[in-house]
Amino acid sequence: MARIVMKFGGTSVADIDRIKNVARRVKREVDAGHEVAVVVSAMSGVTNQLVAWVNQVAPLHDAREYDTVVATGEQVTSGLTALALQELGVNARSWQGWQIPLISDDAHGKARIQAIETDELRRRFQEMRQVAVVSGFQGIGPDRRITTLGRGGSDTSAVALAAALQADRCDIYTDVDGVYTCDPRIVAKARKLDKITYEEMLEMASLGAKVLQTRSVELAMNHRVRVQVLSSFEDKPGTLVVDEDEIVEKQVVSGIAYSRDEAKITLTKVADKPGVAADIFGPLADANVNVDMIVQSSSEDGKTTDMTFTVGKADIERATKLLKDSAGRIGYQDLIADPGVVKVSVIGVGMRSYAGVALTMFRTLAAKGINIQVISTSEIKISVLIDEQYLELALRALHTAYGLDKQ
Amino acid sequence: MARIVMKFGGTSVADIDRIKNVARRVKREVDAGHEVAVVVSAMSGVTNQLVAWVNQVAPLHDAREYDTVVATGEQVTSGLTALALQELGVNARSWQGWQIPLISDDAHGKARIQAIETDELRRRFQEMRQVAVVSGFQGIGPDRRITTLGRGGSDTSAVALAAALQADRCDIYTDVDGVYTCDPRIVAKARKLDKITYEEMLEMASLGAKVLQTRSVELAMNHRVRVQVLSSFEDKPGTLVVDEDEIVEKQVVSGIAYSRDEAKITLTKVADKPGVAADIFGPLADANVNVDMIVQSSSEDGKTTDMTFTVGKADIERATKLLKDSAGRIGYQDLIADPGVVKVSVIGVGMRSYAGVALTMFRTLAAKGINIQVISTSEIKISVLIDEQYLELALRALHTAYGLDKQ
Repeated sequence: MARIVMKFGGTSVADIDRIKNVARRVKREVDAGHEVAVVVSAMSGVTNQLVAWVNQVAPLHDAREYDTVVATGEQVTSGLTALALQELGVNARSWQGWQIPLISDDAHGKARIQAIETDELRRRFQEMRQVAVVSGFQGIGPDRRITTLGRGGSDTSAVALAAALQADRCDIYTDVDGVYTCDPRIVAKARKLDKITYEEMLEMASLGAKVLQTRSVELAMNHRVRVQVLSSFEDKPGTLVVDEDEIVEKQVVSGIAYSRDEAKITLTKVADKPGVAADIFGPLADANVNVDMIVQSSSEDGKTTDMTFTVGKADIERATKLLKDSAGRIGYQDLIADPGVVKVSVIGVGMRSYAGVALTMFRTLAAKGINIQVISTSEIKISVLIDEQYLELALRALHTAYGLDKQ
Repeated sequence: MARIVMKFGGTSVADIDRIKNVARRVKREVDAGHEVAVVVSAMSGVTNQLVAWVNQVAPLHDAREYDTVVATGEQVTSGLTALALQELGVNARSWQGWQIPLISDDAHGKARIQAIETDELRRRFQEMRQVAVVSGFQGIGPDRRITTLGRGGSDTSAVALAAALQADRCDIYTDVDGVYTCDPRIVAKARKLDKITYEEMLEMASLGAKVLQTRSVELAMNHRVRVQVLSSFEDKPGTLVVDEDEIVEKQVVSGIAYSRDEAKITLTKVADKPGVAADIFGPLADANVNVDMIVQSSSEDGKTTDMTFTVGKADIERATKLLKDSAGRIGYQDLIADPGVVKVSVIGVGMRSYAGVALTMFRTLAAKGINIQVISTSEIKISVLIDEQYLELALRALHTAYGLDKQ
């Protein structure tokens, strides 16, 4: 017997038939003797409708009322899912955030979970074999008002609940069947991974692989929750997200990710003096413009330097304006903004112990005539910025070069 | 300065524009210096959708989960209405049943209110001039689960809140502009009443005038809550429902109501012996068939009697079957079922002190050649059963006869 948290996203509960399908999935685990908590999202489209209404009433809104309105989506699904389980003869009841309680801070709209009371859920597992159907995405704040955890927050609810319940597994059911070595819409030879480490998943998630919310992966890593990503429409194993030492045969590179949401800004002939980086990046940080890759290259004269960095595509105009406004203080010759770039990253915990991973990347891209504009590395990731027209070519070449192609 | 409860039904909050309109109405009362609690229904159509989903998942459903699902409709409206008020610069916050708390019994789906905690609402009226926007129709049961009060329950929420708050007035905003002397779709000369007594309103409501839910009128009468029915779309006074002694110039008859939902059943030659009525009506009561008008007429032989009574149209087949099944025990000659009847009632507290009200009714109907099939009377009401084809003729003739026609 195991204790399992099963989380179903919006597409998995999009209509009544799918909710009934979810109930059948849950029943299988109950019949196998497991203790089960189910975490559900709003039916797909519902949250968007609720958010639209809020914005129509009040573009700049009280986040407490926003939370009151949007949390209803999950409440509906939890009630319907409990009913669908009861129809199959499974003892089940719905739980709202305030009933559990799932206690959060008061950062309405993007609240963080502080504690989850699980005594009653455990008692009902044991004494009544009752399935807990929990509304994801929501909690209760210190003022006894409903809070929500931000977009994708149901993943976080599920992982946090699994941690609090000391569950053996947290299964995240979604509309894809697992985590792939690369985007299969671009790389036909991409393979589904059986296992991936938390660290790798974190890099994948923050690069926009929409399988899991970044925060939920962090939480899983910190509490060592075994997460599985799998399809709610097909009946086969997905990808397990686990601790590094659970993976015996480590790949040097586990996957290749990319982000189109990049724009490059270069300031030429910046004075090479202490504090200039702060002059450049201070105003951007103050304006909440997130800066990612940064390269500083000294120029010939030894007194000035070129500063290149990336921002999100949506921020490029704001960033350009801020830097022009600060031109006097920073002191630079030209500002060159280029939105036509993409970031490609190879990710793998095996990198730590293998040399030559970066070299393979550089050689592979060079052989295809692809120029690398910026490089940044971390312990388990190498990222390069390239011209966007080479994206597909680069992904396929790297996928082959690192031996990831499906047989 | 007064304390006012304002209740808005589903058509009054049907979309974002109407919710903004509601906010403007509320603001006017706030600007006039009043303390205001607003009670809102679900946006029209929403509750039906939620109920349909529940029935699709589980035709025979756990009422606790039903309540969890359908209570979300009001939660959405309360949040949006609070936001709309804030946009107009009015301090406002939403309250769900469990937050107030509005405590009910555990009769999920048709719960009865037991207590409403109002200290915090009053404190906020006084210290923050904050408007309380309360989700109607919902409460919290003894098991800390969400309850709902049954269809039309938002009227009951509003009146109960007004009683608990000792409000000066409970304004029920709806899609009609008040209570009429008769249905204006049939009687063109019907007038809107400025005032009506609780007792009269109760008779009107139970006869299917859908302006106010019967239970809310009872509650208003018991707690002497001054209720006003008025239009949320027009800006003019509605009808005040008040205590009898507030009406100085009493009409003998205040209004004429009717019900098409009637079917007549006659059992001929029933043995005229003690206990026969129990034999007839016992099985009907056990099967939840509601019996309304009953007439027992002795026949010539002095040993048998004809028993005539009415049931709801929807119950006629069930009632007929039950009576045929019990034919042996009851003992009667024929069973005649007639769904082609309507009930017409004249209502007025003035009847108590005026003779001849019934006679006017009988003479008026006779003059039009309308046969009266059954008569029943109460202290403030005379009802007759007639052939349905005479309904409009009867209503218009009686309206004129009692001097109710608009000038």
